[in-house]
Amino acid sequence: MAVQTVATSTDSTVDLGPAAALSCRECGHRVPLGPVFACEECFGPLEIAYDFSAYDSEELRRRIEAGPANIWRYAPLLPVPADVADKPNINPGWTKLVKADNLARELGVTGGLYVKDDSGNPTHSFKDRVVAQALEAARAFGFTTLSCSSTGNLAGAVGAAAARAGFRSCVFIPHDLEQGKVVMAAVYGGELVGIEGNYDDVNRFCSELIGDPAGEGWGFVNVNLRPYYAEGSKTLAYEICEQLGWRLPDQLVVPIASGSQLTKIDKGLQELIKLGLVEDKPYKIFGAQAEGCSPVSTAFKAGHDVVRPQKPNTIAKSLAIGNPADGPYVLDIARRTGGAVEDVTDAEIVDAIKLLARTEGIFAETAGGVTVGVTRKLIKEGVLDPAKTTVVLNTGDGLKTLDAVAGTGLTATIRPTLDSFREAGLA
Amino acid sequence: MAVQTVATSTDSTVDLGPAAALSCRECGHRVPLGPVFACEECFGPLEIAYDFSAYDSEELRRRIEAGPANIWRYAPLLPVPADVADKPNINPGWTKLVKADNLARELGVTGGLYVKDDSGNPTHSFKDRVVAQALEAARAFGFTTLSCSSTGNLAGAVGAAAARAGFRSCVFIPHDLEQGKVVMAAVYGGELVGIEGNYDDVNRFCSELIGDPAGEGWGFVNVNLRPYYAEGSKTLAYEICEQLGWRLPDQLVVPIASGSQLTKIDKGLQELIKLGLVEDKPYKIFGAQAEGCSPVSTAFKAGHDVVRPQKPNTIAKSLAIGNPADGPYVLDIARRTGGAVEDVTDAEIVDAIKLLARTEGIFAETAGGVTVGVTRKLIKEGVLDPAKTTVVLNTGDGLKTLDAVAGTGLTATIRPTLDSFREAGLA
Repeated sequence: MAVQTVATSTDSTVDLGPAAALSCRECGHRVPLGPVFACEECFGPLEIAYDFSAYDSEELRRRIEAGPANIWRYAPLLPVPADVADKPNINPGWTKLVKADNLARELGVTGGLYVKDDSGNPTHSFKDRVVAQALEAARAFGFTTLSCSSTGNLAGAVGAAAARAGFRSCVFIPHDLEQGKVVMAAVYGGELVGIEGNYDDVNRFCSELIGDPAGEGWGFVNVNLRPYYAEGSKTLAYEICEQLGWRLPDQLVVPIASGSQLTKIDKGLQELIKLGLVEDKPYKIFGAQAEGCSPVSTAFKAGHDVVRPQKPNTIAKSLAIGNPADGPYVLDIARRTGGAVEDVTDAEIVDAIKLLARTEGIFAETAGGVTVGVTRKLIKEGVLDPAKTTVVLNTGDGLKTLDAVAGTGLTATIRPTLDSFREAGLA
Repeated sequence: MAVQTVATSTDSTVDLGPAAALSCRECGHRVPLGPVFACEECFGPLEIAYDFSAYDSEELRRRIEAGPANIWRYAPLLPVPADVADKPNINPGWTKLVKADNLARELGVTGGLYVKDDSGNPTHSFKDRVVAQALEAARAFGFTTLSCSSTGNLAGAVGAAAARAGFRSCVFIPHDLEQGKVVMAAVYGGELVGIEGNYDDVNRFCSELIGDPAGEGWGFVNVNLRPYYAEGSKTLAYEICEQLGWRLPDQLVVPIASGSQLTKIDKGLQELIKLGLVEDKPYKIFGAQAEGCSPVSTAFKAGHDVVRPQKPNTIAKSLAIGNPADGPYVLDIARRTGGAVEDVTDAEIVDAIKLLARTEGIFAETAGGVTVGVTRKLIKEGVLDPAKTTVVLNTGDGLKTLDAVAGTGLTATIRPTLDSFREAGLA
């Protein structure tokens, strides 16, 4: 990582609400809020340190409940200015927590099964939550271009958020991406740049650009704005607990790509406990991967602390990160909470997408097939307790990964006559 | 229409909340609530007659505001039982009303421009609203199969609603529909029957089935359950007014397929006025069609009361009904309120989809391109007043009509080097 990425200056005029500083997750070194993501001492990842000391729990709960029906109800707990809800953005969050009684019956869950359905976000994936935080950081740091590398959900989330907020956007993708994905990213009218190379080449180029004067004024949502961006996943934890009536679930099943989402969900739950918004009781976090990209699951099962990179080969492309940055933290959280990390095959992913659709009417992206499939597997293995309250995350929309269920089709073909209808046994 | 479709029996045990009877829109003849849709006297369309006499406006408003964040907050105004929110359904509605300041600037609207974005519904179109009403009627009448003919949004809405509610579903489509649309309909696991024939053949077959013993226990959402189904569109009117702070907008731009949605939005606004939930003041309703299927627009411009059928030929397939059942009512409402009906070309539809995406980050289905395009055209023509509060409907999601914007693509292609980046003028 280039040295230009570490903190070099102080800017006391930055107003990002309760965010007080950036703090290194490894060594605890603190630096002022800025567009940096790696510790100048140990190169560990920086994350947001908050000052929540002034909050009274009852007053905070009332303030949240009186807030808007989107993530900004949690503005007091996020790195955003207090008036964030008044600024133009696409207002993600407050998606449905669906009580999945039909699915529970199929899986034998008796303690209450819920699907947190993030396909209800504006661009139909959880990425809207994280991009919304990055956008506020970009405003605070005076950036004028919002950027990312992506092959899927993130491109749309950045394009839409930038359009609405009046930012220029520039999204980098491999030049030979499928036409459907290009359209989903291009429709918002920002720059969409094809890089002659593979996804690794795209990422390498973006890192270079950040360290170069040519990248001045550019906020890469998941690179130089990553500490802010990542905090958006905390809102999943907040919403789940509030929607359960300010209760912690006993068990959560969370997909793993970089591992950041799972890590931040744990952080969000810990904050709610410390703030007195939920009772302090144990919960277990389970990580879900596709077998074709299962570096964290492999490490978990082998009892390792280190995650060995893999070359992804799975239909769950939104989870296909072979070298997950937060992998070691995920292992730590799964072990500390008494959870686990498990993986499912592509065939199991497809089965699980169909299972969720036919039981609850929710059409999930492949990542949702991964979490539902892993839930089923963990129950069979006796690892996940079916008598406990369980929340499964669906982080994206099936319309974006239609190919995964392309084998689904007509159950019958008939002539337009009642005789033909009767012959087909449909009456 | 076969005579089996008219009322033949009374069932006093049906509890559909404030729905008191079915009433003929043409002759006013009343029949008891039942799975019928045509008047036995004059074959006019039946619609729901309510008993709202017990409501106090202040109390009703408080009750609505305390209700769930979906259409069931309006249960007191819909043909559904009072406990509808506790029954398994996909809980559509309470979608975002987006203040579209960027789009307003582009269009020169100064009086406040809003997009009611129904792509936020569970299956990403407004059809979830109407199917949810049909489902409750199906429950009340003891039906066990939910059915429809469809080539698009309705199929998914019926499949999802039936899956979650534990109904069998059976959706009829032309056997040669595009694979993507087949997948979207098939994933919910119900029967998906291909009919060897075109969409007219499918509809003809469905009408036969309803009149046959083989169709017993079948609720066709937009045929024998149509009076209930259609009421779902009223919720768009309720939400728009409540989200504006219990105010009527001055102008609404609504897409026209069968014309039912526009008709029921007007009905909903009239109810809010009569119930004292909004001030009684004039509003104008504008209808929007694609030029390639513009029977109502053509009749409006010619000053006719009768709508002459057209053979549809447009990319706006969700609006491509050449013989719209409610066309005459739409003409009446547009003229009575001082509105208009206008149409736009396919090229204008595509332009408008892109305009909405790049200004507000909303990726609309072709139907949304039609309403935005018509809004722009009506302003240019001096018909729609830019100084008035205007609400434009987007009734579906761009992910379902990707082909419409397939021409959208990369803005640049570069090698993964900073030199190549600079040469492309992207810095």
